[in-house]
Amino acid sequence: MTKQPAPILPNLSSPRELEKLSLPELERLANEIRDVLCNLISSRSAHFASNLGVVELAIALHQTFDFLHHRLIWDTGHQIYPHKLLTGRYEEFETIRTLGGLMGYPNPTESDYDLFCTGHAGSSVSTAMGLASGDHIARPDDERWSVAVIGDGAFPSGVVYEAINNSKRDGRRLMVILNDNEMSICPPVGGMADYLDRVRMNRNYVGLKEEVAKLLSNVPLLGDPVERFLIQVKEAAKAGLSGGMFFEELGMRYFGPIDGHNIALLRKYLRLAKKLDGPILLHVVTEKGHGFRPAAEDPVLFHAPPQFKRRENEVLEMHRSSTRSYTNVARDAIAAAMRRDERVTVMTAAMCQGNKLEPVREEFPDRFFDTGICEAHTVAFAAGQAKVGLRPIVDIYSTFLQRAFDHVFQEVALQDLPVTFMMDRGGLSGPDGPTHHGVFDIGYLRLFPNMVLMAPGDEHDLTAMLDFSLEHTSPCGVRYPKDKAVTVARTDGEPRAPVELGQSEILRWGRDGTLVACGSTLADCLEAAAVLDEEGLDFGVVNARFIKPLDQATLLRALNENPVVLTVEEGALACGFGSAVLEMANAAGAETAHLHRLGIPDKFVEHGEREELMAQLGLDAAGIAQSCRSAVESRHTV
Amino acid sequence: MTKQPAPILPNLSSPRELEKLSLPELERLANEIRDVLCNLISSRSAHFASNLGVVELAIALHQTFDFLHHRLIWDTGHQIYPHKLLTGRYEEFETIRTLGGLMGYPNPTESDYDLFCTGHAGSSVSTAMGLASGDHIARPDDERWSVAVIGDGAFPSGVVYEAINNSKRDGRRLMVILNDNEMSICPPVGGMADYLDRVRMNRNYVGLKEEVAKLLSNVPLLGDPVERFLIQVKEAAKAGLSGGMFFEELGMRYFGPIDGHNIALLRKYLRLAKKLDGPILLHVVTEKGHGFRPAAEDPVLFHAPPQFKRRENEVLEMHRSSTRSYTNVARDAIAAAMRRDERVTVMTAAMCQGNKLEPVREEFPDRFFDTGICEAHTVAFAAGQAKVGLRPIVDIYSTFLQRAFDHVFQEVALQDLPVTFMMDRGGLSGPDGPTHHGVFDIGYLRLFPNMVLMAPGDEHDLTAMLDFSLEHTSPCGVRYPKDKAVTVARTDGEPRAPVELGQSEILRWGRDGTLVACGSTLADCLEAAAVLDEEGLDFGVVNARFIKPLDQATLLRALNENPVVLTVEEGALACGFGSAVLEMANAAGAETAHLHRLGIPDKFVEHGEREELMAQLGLDAAGIAQSCRSAVESRHTV
Repeated sequence: MTKQPAPILPNLSSPRELEKLSLPELERLANEIRDVLCNLISSRSAHFASNLGVVELAIALHQTFDFLHHRLIWDTGHQIYPHKLLTGRYEEFETIRTLGGLMGYPNPTESDYDLFCTGHAGSSVSTAMGLASGDHIARPDDERWSVAVIGDGAFPSGVVYEAINNSKRDGRRLMVILNDNEMSICPPVGGMADYLDRVRMNRNYVGLKEEVAKLLSNVPLLGDPVERFLIQVKEAAKAGLSGGMFFEELGMRYFGPIDGHNIALLRKYLRLAKKLDGPILLHVVTEKGHGFRPAAEDPVLFHAPPQFKRRENEVLEMHRSSTRSYTNVARDAIAAAMRRDERVTVMTAAMCQGNKLEPVREEFPDRFFDTGICEAHTVAFAAGQAKVGLRPIVDIYSTFLQRAFDHVFQEVALQDLPVTFMMDRGGLSGPDGPTHHGVFDIGYLRLFPNMVLMAPGDEHDLTAMLDFSLEHTSPCGVRYPKDKAVTVARTDGEPRAPVELGQSEILRWGRDGTLVACGSTLADCLEAAAVLDEEGLDFGVVNARFIKPLDQATLLRALNENPVVLTVEEGALACGFGSAVLEMANAAGAETAHLHRLGIPDKFVEHGEREELMAQLGLDAAGIAQSCRSAVESRHTV
Repeated sequence: MTKQPAPILPNLSSPRELEKLSLPELERLANEIRDVLCNLISSRSAHFASNLGVVELAIALHQTFDFLHHRLIWDTGHQIYPHKLLTGRYEEFETIRTLGGLMGYPNPTESDYDLFCTGHAGSSVSTAMGLASGDHIARPDDERWSVAVIGDGAFPSGVVYEAINNSKRDGRRLMVILNDNEMSICPPVGGMADYLDRVRMNRNYVGLKEEVAKLLSNVPLLGDPVERFLIQVKEAAKAGLSGGMFFEELGMRYFGPIDGHNIALLRKYLRLAKKLDGPILLHVVTEKGHGFRPAAEDPVLFHAPPQFKRRENEVLEMHRSSTRSYTNVARDAIAAAMRRDERVTVMTAAMCQGNKLEPVREEFPDRFFDTGICEAHTVAFAAGQAKVGLRPIVDIYSTFLQRAFDHVFQEVALQDLPVTFMMDRGGLSGPDGPTHHGVFDIGYLRLFPNMVLMAPGDEHDLTAMLDFSLEHTSPCGVRYPKDKAVTVARTDGEPRAPVELGQSEILRWGRDGTLVACGSTLADCLEAAAVLDEEGLDFGVVNARFIKPLDQATLLRALNENPVVLTVEEGALACGFGSAVLEMANAAGAETAHLHRLGIPDKFVEHGEREELMAQLGLDAAGIAQSCRSAVESRHTV
């Protein structure tokens, strides 16, 4: 019997130890990392395929560079797992994405190897360039490289181009690793994707690449300036003949494409690049899901799959959720509207899967637009469609709409065009954490004149609000939570009030106080009111529905008639819904000291299950009820 | 004596009449337009050089396309003057940029020929693509083109690349005219600029261009499909050999470069392009300031020059302002900080001239970064520098920082990095109008945890606030108005209070009320208080200084001790400074019905002199005093 060698990963205390490992050992390490990833995924939903794709790249990077000296940024950040495993977080790895555990993205508070908490795509080239430029100014004799690893999915984002466009001046020690897995979360779209296809497929180039690789392998990598010059000449000649002209035109030095699962090759190119002057773009081709057949075959499903059981390279059972979420409800409402009205179009910025839009894409290929990760373009494009009479819906995560803030301002609000923003994950995103929570949207949208802003109290509201938006002549936003869809019962068979501009819905009226629920908190407000009822406190519940314009009459009535009023929102208190109520009441000359605003205080919220976070923030039924009791008590002690 | 021919421009009632004009007549028309532009500029400050550059292009466009049928977007929009003159606005032209007069940018409320009110650069390709896509869906049999005219200065903006990247699918009737004048407002920077230089200089190509032009001129432009195919083949061959590969790689069909002052040539290419399928990029080379020698020689000075007297092609006298503005004060404070501290860097997104940073660029070339028009990159780049220990200052117009909203969120606030935002034109920008007013910044910045936000009451505050920011360990924003710098006298030789985190400055305390000035309104608040004093009303004045964190103690004291308190801000009331005071007071359990918030109501503010607009909004001394009187009266009638 062959003796099983000791596992490497559990005993790796620092990535500096990678230097001592042989190539076969590194390859074994890669397998061990893949095993950890596959085991993890049977216990919880997490990013998967992208992490399988960068195992060798992470190993080669940490073997080539000491990233306590050099700088490393992982763009978007959900492919950080191998990096975390290599940088001393093997023991805690199973806590990833759980409350109080490791974050599923880079996190500077966890490790000195994590520099920026990323999550939104595309900024890494700019920040890495800032690191390189800053190092050059602050410590000019120190030859520190800044490396950004960025997927081809993030490449359509404008900020990447803005950065590359500035790289010639500010990127002397900048290395961009284009991790080209031919995928965004969904299949890639657009001219850049086509271009990368051509580069990958260029037969002449593939031959040339091997030739050059042979040549390069004969050149000992020493510091001799003449030799460096020769390498540079060769490399420039290579780029000139290759498909990297696009990047070369903008000022970057291009290498590639090279096989991203070949540690030896990766290491060779990284070492070579390190000896040159930047800005350098190293084009690495990887396979999303590499090493686990089902994931490589369906990387969209395995981007962040539900839990599954596996045996070797096989999925035995997948826990597909049968819960209907607000995302489903929105999708169905969109599809229904598109069936009804030919003017309705829908656009997504690469979140076709996240927003569950595949059936819409199938049914309406001509009115469905996946623009890639480029929210700014998407919003301005929608504005153009609206101008000529269409009714575009931008279906987007609340947090990603931040990227298009200025286009919501100039192209939509200022022109007063009827674009509808369906803002999914408006509120806490759960395990993804602070980069993905959509908790600022109320403030940054109610700022703008002409905007109408709504939050549905239940799934019926959501559908009705979309329908309202498509009839309204000004821009509308609808924010809804990352949660299962609920239906809130109305009193004794009363019909639901239709959604009308600036009208709330009174679900019950109370003598002791009113809970004004902004969207997602309605069910918990009702539950809290029921609990209080049993304690002899009679609280009313208002489904606010509109954040802008507010239902002034109902809200002032509550403030006038009730000893206490509480607004409850799944969003930042600063500039939030409660703040809007304060502004309205103040303009109307009303007293508001008995108004209490429940929501998210002035700090970033960490990751964890949404329910856990809501409870921590006092935004679940128990917390709301407790706030009601305190409010009533404080009133009595005044 | 030769009889002077009748002028064309005053008699042009519609651009449709251009069709009947001969080439020499069109050239005369161009001269007439230039005359109008030169005369205008002697009466007021306006955009100048860019307008002189597009006279022939505007004529050729309107002669080729009926833009009541086809669609035209002028990117950035300050080069709209010839278009306005050609589309029925000759009579009112002298009112441009004045209160109630024509806007200095496209304005859909003025004319059906103006589709989008633009002002921020780079979105035109996306909106035009949206128009084209919308037309294709809504009226598929209608062959409408959407044309975007965009300067090379706007090309570094990421949204342009995002749009081009999507053009292959959605741009079948999209024509992008790259108006390449080798200039942004300042000389161009970055890889794209270098690339366009090479395209322009490519001798082989110039020869080829003429040959192709000759070939093309022999082809009668008929609708025959075979002929169209031949044209397409030729044109494709041409592009393959030309410098337009960059755009071709991303999916656009490239033509050019062609002389943008040759009406006949422009017309020929526009007609040719119109017969093909898009997306098409037509590269037109123009000269900023063309036809007026001093402007062509110094297009930076003549971008938006002060009034001047001229004789023919000569500037006799220029009314250079000697007033010291907040922009100057900020610049001097930045320069002083850079002299004192080697960690301080400064970056501008192409606003070197607007922010008067030229001397800083001269003195500190290695710590000065002009990134071109790409605010998102600029902010992420600054964050990178801050991470490695530098103290970057982003010197930027408030309204343009909107472009980097998500990067302020993710790269700066979430990482809690000490980046300083010097936000010029925080408030009303004056004659530029709604796209340039910086009235939303208070809301969109105080949203984020970790942010510190300040507004100086006078020029001394501004310098002290910058210095405070550079010592502080979290991100800071300082917003200051587009106004002359003032010094506010303190009582009887008392020293100015130093700027300390969350501390306001009490300039006087009153029995009848308190005016809380947020930055730029301080001098007018003091003047209002002086006026009220004479009427027997004793109003105190507080210089708030901090918007976040607020000076809770002083503000609550005012609310407790004073019958009325008024907050006065040059910004949107929604989510504004007064709103922040309401939130703070509410959290502290204070009554606020006697708090009155003066600021900008929920609508977009038009253009006009800043003083006129402030008076209209009741934010000048007289308006503030009047609001104080009303507040006191309403208190008495309660």
